[in-house]
Amino acid sequence: MDYTAFFHDRIAALKAEGRYRVFAELARHAGHFPAATRFVDGAPQPVTVWCSNDYLGMGQHPEVLAAMHAAVDECGAGAGGTRNISGTSRHHVALERELASLHEKEAALVFTSGYTANLTALSTLGALLPDCLILSDELNHNSMIEGIRHSRADKVVFRHNDLDHLESLLAAQPRERPKLIAFESVYSMDGDFGPIAEICDLAERYNALTYLDEVHGVGLYGATGAGVAQRDGVMHRVDIIQGTLAKAFGVVGGYVAATPEICDAIRSYGQGFIFSSALPPAIAAAAQASIAVVRRTPALREKHQERAATLKHLLHEWRLPVMRSPSHIVPVLVGDAARCKLATDILLDDFGIYIQPINYPTVPRGTERLRLTPGPHHDDLQMRRLVEALAAVWRRLELAAA
Amino acid sequence: MDYTAFFHDRIAALKAEGRYRVFAELARHAGHFPAATRFVDGAPQPVTVWCSNDYLGMGQHPEVLAAMHAAVDECGAGAGGTRNISGTSRHHVALERELASLHEKEAALVFTSGYTANLTALSTLGALLPDCLILSDELNHNSMIEGIRHSRADKVVFRHNDLDHLESLLAAQPRERPKLIAFESVYSMDGDFGPIAEICDLAERYNALTYLDEVHGVGLYGATGAGVAQRDGVMHRVDIIQGTLAKAFGVVGGYVAATPEICDAIRSYGQGFIFSSALPPAIAAAAQASIAVVRRTPALREKHQERAATLKHLLHEWRLPVMRSPSHIVPVLVGDAARCKLATDILLDDFGIYIQPINYPTVPRGTERLRLTPGPHHDDLQMRRLVEALAAVWRRLELAAA
Ligand SMILES: Cc1ncc(COP(=O)(O)O)c(C=O)c1O
Ligand SMILES: Cc1ncc(COP(=O)(O)O)c(C=O)c1O
Repeated sequence: MDYTAFFHDRIAALKAEGRYRVFAELARHAGHFPAATRFVDGAPQPVTVWCSNDYLGMGQHPEVLAAMHAAVDECGAGAGGTRNISGTSRHHVALERELASLHEKEAALVFTSGYTANLTALSTLGALLPDCLILSDELNHNSMIEGIRHSRADKVVFRHNDLDHLESLLAAQPRERPKLIAFESVYSMDGDFGPIAEICDLAERYNALTYLDEVHGVGLYGATGAGVAQRDGVMHRVDIIQGTLAKAFGVVGGYVAATPEICDAIRSYGQGFIFSSALPPAIAAAAQASIAVVRRTPALREKHQERAATLKHLLHEWRLPVMRSPSHIVPVLVGDAARCKLATDILLDDFGIYIQPINYPTVPRGTERLRLTPGPHHDDLQMRRLVEALAAVWRRLELAAA
Repeated sequence: MDYTAFFHDRIAALKAEGRYRVFAELARHAGHFPAATRFVDGAPQPVTVWCSNDYLGMGQHPEVLAAMHAAVDECGAGAGGTRNISGTSRHHVALERELASLHEKEAALVFTSGYTANLTALSTLGALLPDCLILSDELNHNSMIEGIRHSRADKVVFRHNDLDHLESLLAAQPRERPKLIAFESVYSMDGDFGPIAEICDLAERYNALTYLDEVHGVGLYGATGAGVAQRDGVMHRVDIIQGTLAKAFGVVGGYVAATPEICDAIRSYGQGFIFSSALPPAIAAAAQASIAVVRRTPALREKHQERAATLKHLLHEWRLPVMRSPSHIVPVLVGDAARCKLATDILLDDFGIYIQPINYPTVPRGTERLRLTPGPHHDDLQMRRLVEALAAVWRRLELAAA
């Protein structure tokens, strides 16, 4: 076995397929987002970011930065330990209280990332519940899939958002068997919503727990930004709400909100929670400040929706193939990996517009796309420049119009 | 199935066993560590922390805090995306360069935690290498165990630090079969070292990769703090070095350092890396500043070792049952879960000394202990107070002397 040659070949295979990823090296400028500087071999180029998941620009909000600065001065850089071994600060406790209150649950538990939250919560719940069956939407995020696999519980996959399929799977099970339905509120690559109310109906009828990933919903939907479940008036019917602090809240970290019993079980048995150093207090403080701003500022959400609607409208006008999406996510179809990459290279090099191509395995082959995430800080001029650049690239590469 | 009752019972079971964890709510004070304030129902109590893994107090180092402040002002709070989708900043790139240089490797890759680094690196390597066999020390950390399990590769466990056992397992395998030996440099509960040179000898003889967790070694051993492998002069012989930014470096995050081929394979195939938001640029900047200070300051490591030796000596003098540990970790045997918890409760409530009890499953039953982590900032007076308090508790609870 020649290990180096082996790994070299695995990378070469990705390159041959056009799936090798080169990370754009960026400097974000607090106060100027979505403006940023990109570095190519050290040389700076001004760019506009159109693919960030800092959906509301909260990562540069003055109150968030002030809270982070204050907590750094007060507590230092790191937490100094796992949550159990000296790593729990006042800021962690306050953040968990804020999250529980946001989701109108009695408890919440913070993790180092949304990924770890899904992995740990699902693997712990699936492993604890005796003979548990997990019913999982076929388009669930990798972190949920891996958490379910790691639980070793039985799993069945239901067709995306297909309530009849889900019901037939539930009906085939004994009522007493523990069951958990895992799904998302906003599927982030297509931008469609999960049918939360209807899934809660089924869960109640067949005695299943509901586990909802609101990673792309929190901050963005509902009267106080608690997510799509809040908008739909069904938040109290969802047993476990999972979210991130890294997208609409603009910081980093993940969480679940649920009953005290469920949170305490995950806290006490969840390995990815127990055996890992806590988030820095300053991160917890920044996240809490961000949530507080987002909760009390519906205008941010209105502006966010308006910007997305305006961009979709413009793309239609310019006959660019925007995919149907009822949410804030604006996918534009290319349909081919190599041309998708090429289009984004031209946009970046010639137009200073930064969009990452979305290729297989993140989306099915043949549906390769640009995924645009307009936000309150993208102004009309930037939008016009974006659409003009896209139109120019579409002509240059002879891509299909709408 | 009554879910709430079920989770309630699982928690009650932990309580009945004396294994239920109550997190101490702390406020660390930058500039005054190990002094901190503990809150009991909101009421403050001054305490001295003796169980932090911020081993060198780097979490409060002025250069680290200055770097964090500067990067918050420059870039904002969060990264805004996964590493691939707008989340790579100059600070991430610089941090990875610093880590590669620290370990004298050509490449490094940063994760949101040391836990995720182990989970993702081991699961990816074990899954990629065809028919891989992973040989794992029986005392390996949970994050390695879970990474190995997640890889679905075959696994054999060798007796802790037992080279004969390891060799017999290696010798039984065809030379051409991919093999990976996973072990630690410092086992954090007993404080003993892994035989790195000898394991590298075996790996070379039997054509295996070596994967070394230096989480409790980095910053603390070797001329520039690259870890025990550096101290032992064998760093270049270890294929993959894994570490954390949350302990001796005092921030948060994890990493691997290895060849460009191996890092690129993990970067390109590792799900816990690909599908999770990047660490904030300010965290990367703080970690890089911390590494730079630690590299150029051997005096920190000398003081750290002196403090550990002094504490061990004092404990011996006072006939307190300090367990044999060649490293900076100072375990004191209690041998019973309930009394271990009780001892730490008295230390905290009556003496303002904060040490978390270490019970099963973190250590085997019957070896429950206090795990002390003296550092450069614990002064002679604090040490004397600690030992006097321990002696008082030992008398009060009639615990066994040395
Ligand atoms: C649906 C979904 N769940 C979970 C995650 C993971 O969250 P985080 O980025 O906080 O790790 C992501 C993306 O990163 C996601 O898109
Ligand atoms: C040996 C070992 N490896 C890995 C980890 C995980 O590192 P992190 O705390 O950065 O998640 C820990 C402890 O937390 C550890 O003790």
